[in-house]
Amino acid sequence: MSPTNNGSSSSEPFPPFNNNIHPHDNHDTDADELDLLDDADTTAILGDDPLQQPLSFKRKQKQTGIFSQPARLFNALTGRGNPSRNSQDIPPPQPPHRTIPGATGATRLDYVPGNGGSKDSFPTDWLAEGPGRRVGYEDLTAIDWIFEYTKERQRQRSLLSRTTSIGFPLLGFLQRVLDASQVWVILILSGLAVGTLTAGIDVTTDWLGDIKYGFCSTVDGGAFYLSKTACCYGYDEISKCQGWKTWGNALGATSKGGVWFAEYAVYLVLGVAFALSASLLVKEYAVYAKHSGIPEIKTVLGGFIIRRFLGLWTLITKSLGLVLAVASGMWLGKEGPLVHVACCCANLFIKLFPSINNNEARKREVLSAAAASGISVAFGSPIGGVLFSLEQLSYYFPDKTMWQSFVCAMTAAMVLEAFDPFRSGKLVMYQVTYSSVWHGFELVPFVLLGLLGGIYGGLFIKANMWVARWRKSATWLPGPVVQVVAVAVLTALLNYPNNYMRAQCSDLVSNLFSECSKLTDDQFGLCKTGAASAGTIILLIFAAVLGFFLAAITFGLQIPAGIILPSMAIGALTGRAIGIIMEIWQRNHPNFIAFRSCEPDVPCITPGTYAIIGAAAALGGVTRMTVSIVVIMFELTGALTYVLPIMVAVMISKWVGDAFSRRGIYESWIHFNEYPYLDNSEEIPIPDIPASQIMTRIEDLVVLTATGHTIASLTAVLEQHPYRGFPVVSDPRDAILLGYISRAELAYSLHTSTQAPRLLPPETEAFFAHQPLADPRTTLDLRQWMDQTPLTLPSRSRLHLAVSYFQKLGLRYVLFVDRGVLQGLLTKKDVWYVLNGAEETRRTAGGAGDGGRGDVSLGVARESGEGESAGLLGVVGRDGDDLEPVSPIGDTGSNLL
Amino acid sequence: MSPTNNGSSSSEPFPPFNNNIHPHDNHDTDADELDLLDDADTTAILGDDPLQQPLSFKRKQKQTGIFSQPARLFNALTGRGNPSRNSQDIPPPQPPHRTIPGATGATRLDYVPGNGGSKDSFPTDWLAEGPGRRVGYEDLTAIDWIFEYTKERQRQRSLLSRTTSIGFPLLGFLQRVLDASQVWVILILSGLAVGTLTAGIDVTTDWLGDIKYGFCSTVDGGAFYLSKTACCYGYDEISKCQGWKTWGNALGATSKGGVWFAEYAVYLVLGVAFALSASLLVKEYAVYAKHSGIPEIKTVLGGFIIRRFLGLWTLITKSLGLVLAVASGMWLGKEGPLVHVACCCANLFIKLFPSINNNEARKREVLSAAAASGISVAFGSPIGGVLFSLEQLSYYFPDKTMWQSFVCAMTAAMVLEAFDPFRSGKLVMYQVTYSSVWHGFELVPFVLLGLLGGIYGGLFIKANMWVARWRKSATWLPGPVVQVVAVAVLTALLNYPNNYMRAQCSDLVSNLFSECSKLTDDQFGLCKTGAASAGTIILLIFAAVLGFFLAAITFGLQIPAGIILPSMAIGALTGRAIGIIMEIWQRNHPNFIAFRSCEPDVPCITPGTYAIIGAAAALGGVTRMTVSIVVIMFELTGALTYVLPIMVAVMISKWVGDAFSRRGIYESWIHFNEYPYLDNSEEIPIPDIPASQIMTRIEDLVVLTATGHTIASLTAVLEQHPYRGFPVVSDPRDAILLGYISRAELAYSLHTSTQAPRLLPPETEAFFAHQPLADPRTTLDLRQWMDQTPLTLPSRSRLHLAVSYFQKLGLRYVLFVDRGVLQGLLTKKDVWYVLNGAEETRRTAGGAGDGGRGDVSLGVARESGEGESAGLLGVVGRDGDDLEPVSPIGDTGSNLL
Repeated sequence: MSPTNNGSSSSEPFPPFNNNIHPHDNHDTDADELDLLDDADTTAILGDDPLQQPLSFKRKQKQTGIFSQPARLFNALTGRGNPSRNSQDIPPPQPPHRTIPGATGATRLDYVPGNGGSKDSFPTDWLAEGPGRRVGYEDLTAIDWIFEYTKERQRQRSLLSRTTSIGFPLLGFLQRVLDASQVWVILILSGLAVGTLTAGIDVTTDWLGDIKYGFCSTVDGGAFYLSKTACCYGYDEISKCQGWKTWGNALGATSKGGVWFAEYAVYLVLGVAFALSASLLVKEYAVYAKHSGIPEIKTVLGGFIIRRFLGLWTLITKSLGLVLAVASGMWLGKEGPLVHVACCCANLFIKLFPSINNNEARKREVLSAAAASGISVAFGSPIGGVLFSLEQLSYYFPDKTMWQSFVCAMTAAMVLEAFDPFRSGKLVMYQVTYSSVWHGFELVPFVLLGLLGGIYGGLFIKANMWVARWRKSATWLPGPVVQVVAVAVLTALLNYPNNYMRAQCSDLVSNLFSECSKLTDDQFGLCKTGAASAGTIILLIFAAVLGFFLAAITFGLQIPAGIILPSMAIGALTGRAIGIIMEIWQRNHPNFIAFRSCEPDVPCITPGTYAIIGAAAALGGVTRMTVSIVVIMFELTGALTYVLPIMVAVMISKWVGDAFSRRGIYESWIHFNEYPYLDNSEEIPIPDIPASQIMTRIEDLVVLTATGHTIASLTAVLEQHPYRGFPVVSDPRDAILLGYISRAELAYSLHTSTQAPRLLPPETEAFFAHQPLADPRTTLDLRQWMDQTPLTLPSRSRLHLAVSYFQKLGLRYVLFVDRGVLQGLLTKKDVWYVLNGAEETRRTAGGAGDGGRGDVSLGVARESGEGESAGLLGVVGRDGDDLEPVSPIGDTGSNLL
Repeated sequence: MSPTNNGSSSSEPFPPFNNNIHPHDNHDTDADELDLLDDADTTAILGDDPLQQPLSFKRKQKQTGIFSQPARLFNALTGRGNPSRNSQDIPPPQPPHRTIPGATGATRLDYVPGNGGSKDSFPTDWLAEGPGRRVGYEDLTAIDWIFEYTKERQRQRSLLSRTTSIGFPLLGFLQRVLDASQVWVILILSGLAVGTLTAGIDVTTDWLGDIKYGFCSTVDGGAFYLSKTACCYGYDEISKCQGWKTWGNALGATSKGGVWFAEYAVYLVLGVAFALSASLLVKEYAVYAKHSGIPEIKTVLGGFIIRRFLGLWTLITKSLGLVLAVASGMWLGKEGPLVHVACCCANLFIKLFPSINNNEARKREVLSAAAASGISVAFGSPIGGVLFSLEQLSYYFPDKTMWQSFVCAMTAAMVLEAFDPFRSGKLVMYQVTYSSVWHGFELVPFVLLGLLGGIYGGLFIKANMWVARWRKSATWLPGPVVQVVAVAVLTALLNYPNNYMRAQCSDLVSNLFSECSKLTDDQFGLCKTGAASAGTIILLIFAAVLGFFLAAITFGLQIPAGIILPSMAIGALTGRAIGIIMEIWQRNHPNFIAFRSCEPDVPCITPGTYAIIGAAAALGGVTRMTVSIVVIMFELTGALTYVLPIMVAVMISKWVGDAFSRRGIYESWIHFNEYPYLDNSEEIPIPDIPASQIMTRIEDLVVLTATGHTIASLTAVLEQHPYRGFPVVSDPRDAILLGYISRAELAYSLHTSTQAPRLLPPETEAFFAHQPLADPRTTLDLRQWMDQTPLTLPSRSRLHLAVSYFQKLGLRYVLFVDRGVLQGLLTKKDVWYVLNGAEETRRTAGGAGDGGRGDVSLGVARESGEGESAGLLGVVGRDGDDLEPVSPIGDTGSNLL
């Protein structure tokens, strides 16, 4: 097999035959244009790709055309529809050679026993082995982790050999150091950018939020662009501040009612205006800037391509939209969106370094690391950020990523600290220190808070998902912008009359967390004593309930919106209410047996601590995180003192929440949007069935034979079948597996071979196996584009083994063979459907149903099916079982499938 | 295939044929006796096992006897050495069936196309598929993670079906809750035990350590069992304390010199006595209690069985020995051993719950979680402990383990806090808070400290490993106890004259860390000013250098000994020295340009912060940890202020250390002891070669054929070949892979079948394939013991893909096939040798060499070999390439291989 015997159609020179260098280094030039997450112009390369319609990720049913006759057992496409040709073209299946067990294939090198080393000294022919060349990923497809890491290893190796042969050892060393430092440059730049951006967002939000109540006049040397805190800097009691003019005074209202209504009106108008602007920004410039972004980040980090999701426009839109959305006073937070902002920043800097930008796996490592900086600045909690990224976001998080993540999170936190946006020396508004300790009897209300947090979380997810489904199904609803305006109007109308809800969320949380003895200005009347505090309790609970409903309809609107801070606020309101109840009880019955441990004349109960524990519990119930929440709260309070109660509350909250539904809010949205995120926790139920029950059997697969094709026949296959790839077998009778070729690679190679410089006519022969007699100039050898060592499993394996393969090795597909004979194919998508569908069947029997019919086990369901057409997926009853293309930009994001 | 057609030899009834329940649930009764990590009496079951000699993990070369004639291409053992028999017994290889591609095997179920569901409704025959039954692991073997998790899933499923059919739904629910809570019970009990034990160890160590200097007299109401701090509790200046009598006074020495020598003598005698006792304890009761235990824990958590390593005797010996060793004043710490203690505690509680105890994978999850509590109590740093377990120890650390780990670490820390062993409210002696901030110019000395830390780490590892190798090779050296005594004498002699070294390590570190303004009693003269401080600097550096050498000869002795605290002490000594230099410089040249940022009249430099940064850097250099060190230091100081300098120093230290050698101290010991730990970080270099160059080819494998064996012939195979398992192929000509049977299962099944109740004669036929005509009463069907779906890879795969399989799926072996034909076998051990040997070849060209001949690439090395016998492993030149059994209990631990 000579080096000229390859039918390559690419214009770049071929690499030297070398044991150590693999060819896919060379396709960087192709990949440059295709791998960019945000480059939309892949059509430039796949221009004449028959795949003109947007791809749908929805499960496609088998074709019902000519290829589905029951008599045809599997659709082996041999080109020109002439099966008799095969038996002429390729040799009949050789019985295994007597002495060389493996030498059955035509492409095997001959092995002469006894002639030691003859096999090994033969140059590794990359046409004969290896995972094949790739053209990069299409939008909305899964990445192949194994392949990406292989690519990176090849790159490292070629870098090493290039730099060691350079002549100047120091220069080579420096090149390698520079290469290794790229990650650090990206992460430190990201940290700096995130810290700066967050400071800007904090200051602007603060100002815009205050503008709704009044403005800073030039009295006292103020200026209109100052927030209330900045305007009144130096005043102990903010009510004495002269520079701050409320709208009531400014508009000249005189009566008390007039002032109230004037301020109400301005609050309403400005709040709605902000929300409208945010919504318009999202609609016009970057639809991916909506929502919190965390479900999508999880999906991307899990190995999925979503172009433009982390682009510059998304970053700008999300930052501006976030400021406006938060300032509008709606029940949303900036914490989740800041994670998205951090990932966008990192992605921008990644583009500076092609060696990372061209590797989807390394890119995801860097993004995982950078995500930590989002939570780091959102809560002033760098370690919490790292653990958040580890616990909630990341799919693959090696040790070195943890350190990178830590450095990035620390950088961002320190930049933010240097900017000191709140002029308080604190990183976030609601950082507190408590001077008191807790007593044993308080564990009872803390456990109660955990229970309430779990119930809140479970109900909130149910309510929010119900709203989301209703919004999706109610076709008469107006467009997303009008929806945002409607919710904003409702929010403003309900918020203003309630003192607690009128304030910005972060302001409210800050006051709820604080100790009464440290409050200089009891803005919310939280520290009232005696009978007045009963009113406080009612107002607090009322605010929590209203907040629950407002947050449930807000999260999911087309504006940047996080759910973390609203959850904390609702939890803190509840917690503070319970704290005040406990305080009143203890004050009125100091001799009650439980209160014996209280010291006399010192406040025994600190309601602020109840608020923080309530916030932690609510957050735990909604997100189902554990360690990260405890660490974030620990970093917020800065003491080990309250870690035990927080731990207990979070744990109970998680248990109670899990009893409602296994999925947290982010997983629920992933499931709702049908993102192909393959959860790698062990807790997902995997049906105990053989994988062969799930796989697409060879009878239903479109497979290609090794020979007998022309460019035209393969193009026709691509046109007729929408599948992402095709297994290649020796011939339709034996179906000995030879490899797997993806649609993208096949389309690309066919396309380029018919263009200059090759200009092959459509009737050119194309093959996937070694053809010793073929003229490489007039035939097309597709082996270089085929994965010739696809991963296989024995066809009798259980499903959970196959799932382990997908989860742990990050595959896109696995082929099932029995003694070399192809039996079936299982894709990541199939596994996703089975795992999600399985639970669906068990829990709700389809959609928002009642769960009553959940007894239909998978095995039974499968058996009741009719041969080919009613697989498990048919029983689960997804609505996308057709070939109809789905528009790539929709409303709820189901377009991503 | 009827249910009675199984040749099982086990006495328990067979499980019902059921799609959902798998048979290996049933072997719990076998496994109970075999899986226990600490049960040594496996011989009771494998009594008649032909494997009487202890197993060696060393690489075995092929037999050089009758089985190695070059003409025999692979050693297919067909029983009775009668190859002609095979062609009669099993059908000739069928050409693949025309319409059913997979139905080539005799055991395949027939599939009738069109008869939808007939295949699926057929009961899943566990004889025909599945991973087979197991008898548990032998000592010093690797576990099969995939199998263990499968077992757990089966257990969960059977629990679910058992409890849902119970009649009382609440009772079933409670059973499941109880089952799920077992992990928590273990971890909370472990946390409590670790906290209590550590408090005991702390108090006892403190007292024993102080006994060397004096004792608490009954003056002032003291008692002899009080430590100096406890005896003098309440005194601001410890020198004024009356109750504490130094030995000089007590022994009645009068002259100053007499007192000094008397105290020196007592110090020497007591120190050596403590060390001797520790060493004798270890030697007599539990040899695994020696050393820090962290290398072994890493190995165990990586999936290796070391019996007795986590047993009760190890726990007792380690705890007592640790107290004595620390009190002896040698240069060792208690931090690493406390992790071992924590794991032992958890392992004891695990034994209460068979469902965890019988699953090696779950056991390792619990141990990973519990390990965090060791560092948590050692440093008073629960989050640091979790991250230590995650970064340093664990192989497999899912999210839920992180939370469990956190709870365990917190419990332990809070118990310790409740005991308050130091009567200071602090968890560890060297917890500090600083009142000052750092200045920009100080980053220069901080970077210098990072450099020094890295150099220290690199040199320390080199020196320590050199000592270890020398100790191993110097056969004339006396026994381990004498070695300990010798080092103890040397240490005591050197320690006493130097004020810094005389103190306990933790005491020293505590003083080095502290701010001068907060010190009430400048015991070490660290806060001297003017000319006197020059002497301090010299003494500090002198102590650091001496400490380096003492620690290098101490770490590796046969006593419980950690390296964390000595490293911190050495770093802190260096750091404090540099801090004092900076302080003098700044005081003398306050107008120097760098010092402009200092405020006048306030101490600008805090030497204590230099000590803490130096300690972090030294620790980073030795262990190569990053995040955990920063978090531990952050929790020690409790403020974000010094995180940036610590981060910078740790990062530089790691880089510099990595330039010396890639392995940290624990990895170096793992490598030195040749523990089969397969590092799962990506940074290990994997040679870019086809796996076929490494695998044991089929020509060199001992494989079994499916038929033609008798019990006697198989017993003979076991006797002749020491291999851990045997692939099973259809017949020697075709070598179609049917499965894999492990030595343990084969030996067990052969043994039980010849015992009551079966009492089969040795000439009974035994087979691995379905034999329709065989009488199950008079033949032995071994299929149930065979893994019938072993994981395979295409034989042309690259090595790094195979390594990914081992790392990510946790396999013990992988088989290579080409179109169903067995090509070779690769075991975890082979991969371990290749990865470690590859680096050896590249770095040092064998042993402690010079690295000059490192250019011999693997490919070249392989090619120069001679056919079969000179594989890569031959070139690397391990010393264990023979069949000689190795004694299971040795000195340096190389026995574990």
